[in-house]
Amino acid sequence: MLTPEEALQQILTHTPILLPETVPLEQAEGRVLAEELFAQSELPPFDNSAMDGFAVRSADVADAGPDRPVKLKMLDVVRAGSLPRLALQPGQAIKIMTGAPIPKGADAVVMKEFTSSTEDDWITIFRAPKKNENIRPKGEDIRVGQSLALSGLRVRPYDVALLAAQGFKMLSVVRKPKVAVLATGDELVSLTEPLAPGKIRNSNGPAIAAFLSRWKVPCRDLGIAGDDPARLEEMLRDAFAFADVLLVSGGVSVGDFDYTKAVLEKSGVREIFWKAAIKPGKPIFYGLKADEGGGKKIVFGLPGNPVSALVCLEEFVRPALEKLQGFTPKHPSYHLQGKAVNAYPKPKDRQQYLFCNARGSENDWELEIIRPQGSAMLGMACQANALAVARIGIDQVCPGDRLPFRWIK
Amino acid sequence: MLTPEEALQQILTHTPILLPETVPLEQAEGRVLAEELFAQSELPPFDNSAMDGFAVRSADVADAGPDRPVKLKMLDVVRAGSLPRLALQPGQAIKIMTGAPIPKGADAVVMKEFTSSTEDDWITIFRAPKKNENIRPKGEDIRVGQSLALSGLRVRPYDVALLAAQGFKMLSVVRKPKVAVLATGDELVSLTEPLAPGKIRNSNGPAIAAFLSRWKVPCRDLGIAGDDPARLEEMLRDAFAFADVLLVSGGVSVGDFDYTKAVLEKSGVREIFWKAAIKPGKPIFYGLKADEGGGKKIVFGLPGNPVSALVCLEEFVRPALEKLQGFTPKHPSYHLQGKAVNAYPKPKDRQQYLFCNARGSENDWELEIIRPQGSAMLGMACQANALAVARIGIDQVCPGDRLPFRWIK
Repeated sequence: MLTPEEALQQILTHTPILLPETVPLEQAEGRVLAEELFAQSELPPFDNSAMDGFAVRSADVADAGPDRPVKLKMLDVVRAGSLPRLALQPGQAIKIMTGAPIPKGADAVVMKEFTSSTEDDWITIFRAPKKNENIRPKGEDIRVGQSLALSGLRVRPYDVALLAAQGFKMLSVVRKPKVAVLATGDELVSLTEPLAPGKIRNSNGPAIAAFLSRWKVPCRDLGIAGDDPARLEEMLRDAFAFADVLLVSGGVSVGDFDYTKAVLEKSGVREIFWKAAIKPGKPIFYGLKADEGGGKKIVFGLPGNPVSALVCLEEFVRPALEKLQGFTPKHPSYHLQGKAVNAYPKPKDRQQYLFCNARGSENDWELEIIRPQGSAMLGMACQANALAVARIGIDQVCPGDRLPFRWIK
Repeated sequence: MLTPEEALQQILTHTPILLPETVPLEQAEGRVLAEELFAQSELPPFDNSAMDGFAVRSADVADAGPDRPVKLKMLDVVRAGSLPRLALQPGQAIKIMTGAPIPKGADAVVMKEFTSSTEDDWITIFRAPKKNENIRPKGEDIRVGQSLALSGLRVRPYDVALLAAQGFKMLSVVRKPKVAVLATGDELVSLTEPLAPGKIRNSNGPAIAAFLSRWKVPCRDLGIAGDDPARLEEMLRDAFAFADVLLVSGGVSVGDFDYTKAVLEKSGVREIFWKAAIKPGKPIFYGLKADEGGGKKIVFGLPGNPVSALVCLEEFVRPALEKLQGFTPKHPSYHLQGKAVNAYPKPKDRQQYLFCNARGSENDWELEIIRPQGSAMLGMACQANALAVARIGIDQVCPGDRLPFRWIK
């Protein structure tokens, strides 16, 4: 049986990166760029004022100071968005707004705060600006031809701003996977059906959809296949018609009515692995189906028990979804360490995910392991704020043991 | 002028929590619950098997062991989703699947792995189960009437699973704010217009929309108002007709054409503060407008320079959006510490946000401050992977100084 690390390695090896598509810039946030982008124009596109103030010739006001005002003739006003009509001659100033183009002849801008204008058409300057003071020169930030964004960049809002400033309307980004979710099991009824004796509600569909919504991956919940192999086969056909990723929960264990694996194989899904040395989640299945375009569709068989299904979703499906979208998978990350305050027996040959309450503060977390835990105990899972990991090789967590954990958010 | 902490305090004091709305369970992930929910039924709803195996009377097999097999008559099969037809009598076993109801008379389930069935209708047991072994008792996880989720909970996928299992179809959650975004400035042209001399592209609209999309807050980008007060007033009227939050960028400074504040006031917006002691972003404006229903609309005037606008968006607008949605605002959080490797002068009376490249590893980060920085330099901002904070009171960051920082993602 694969260790969880080996299972994840298999998943990351076999799961491809999807092909690019073109989307409007406004929709590119969080997507992975599939092309390198180069600057089309200088930024700023022209010399412009960094302040509201007066464009001057620095030589004219070289001696200006708080007690040595220099008077200049005010020639004109340049607003942001308009062009200077006149060039500056010695002894003149042009009133200028932030972002407005610097008039010809001017080589500095004096901030409004260091000036006064008591007479019409004349302005008094109380400061000797350095040459180029308060001028944002053309191309200061970006020069034509410069690389703006490398292929593989995950587009951030700041990148959207830069690319908007550069006039990029459409970007080539890695496509998002479309996910189909379906649940098997004759015991399941949907949220809208009455709950007959012996039945339970399908919680995997809504909860998987909730995780995918959080991860911004589009998904369609196809509902419940029951334990009817023919119905499952038909639903798989419908799912493969649109989906890149299929998540089937239930029916992957060893019971007499666990048809899922057999039906998947019949539907052309090749098993990469079945079962991993984890608790909960042992019967997880991962397979591939060749698609007509020469690509691969990804199939996960998740356990039917809801806690197991959701643990497998975060541990194994999320990294696959990240890989498909071109990210370097970073989840889940057990980046915190805590000290168990109570004991918990575990199977020595499996890694156990333990629902805990973490208390304390940075670098001093205590983990209270919730007892008992069970793969169908959603109430138990909802009481937890943290998920800790107890590795293969130990058969008991003892008080004081240090465990890696992450928050359940 | 308010310190950034005082400004944030003002924002959090005046920004209300929105009223609840009812949404389908599937859409509740990440939303804040506006009601306490109580269990409608037991979970599990009936005693059921935790394993595929055989339901037995533990007394019948009390002496069973690997070398002491006990034979039982196989009476029936119970699948998950069906009901047991027969009660167990002494000497009998019923084959049972995971999740299936426990037949009357049985008080333990022996895992399939500890049994063999060489003859039809007879089953050999090699293990003496404890009483109740592998039985998940009715109500083990959740009892009727128990609190499932408190008002104020931010709904997680695990909560969705539990609430689905309990048959909740609709939830009352705090409404999400609708945000209107508009840019002022005669210098701005949209992405689809040609770039005439003296003009620049509106990058604030797309970048603000990108941040809001990341934060899952619906927004409508109303485009560019120019510097025409009448046009701006008309656009504000349209915005207030649907939006809870209005973000106007540009025109909040002290230039002759900075009409935004005046037009906002004319439109019924009451100033709570104008200007904060920060760089970039000093001219930020925050105000409120009473709405007809007795509520308040939130208005931010953001600086026109794109780096300033985006810094203010993350520092001040995001916490307001979190408060509106009923979260405890946690952003932005400067939870890391790094050591500056280079010097940077700053205004002593303002907190400066410094775009940096952070290198190193946990607990040993080096911050290279990008030089020069400017409030319009998007290319500079896109080179950074971290934003550091240099507090009020110091006029120079020196190499070796420790600065709080956060990642720019």
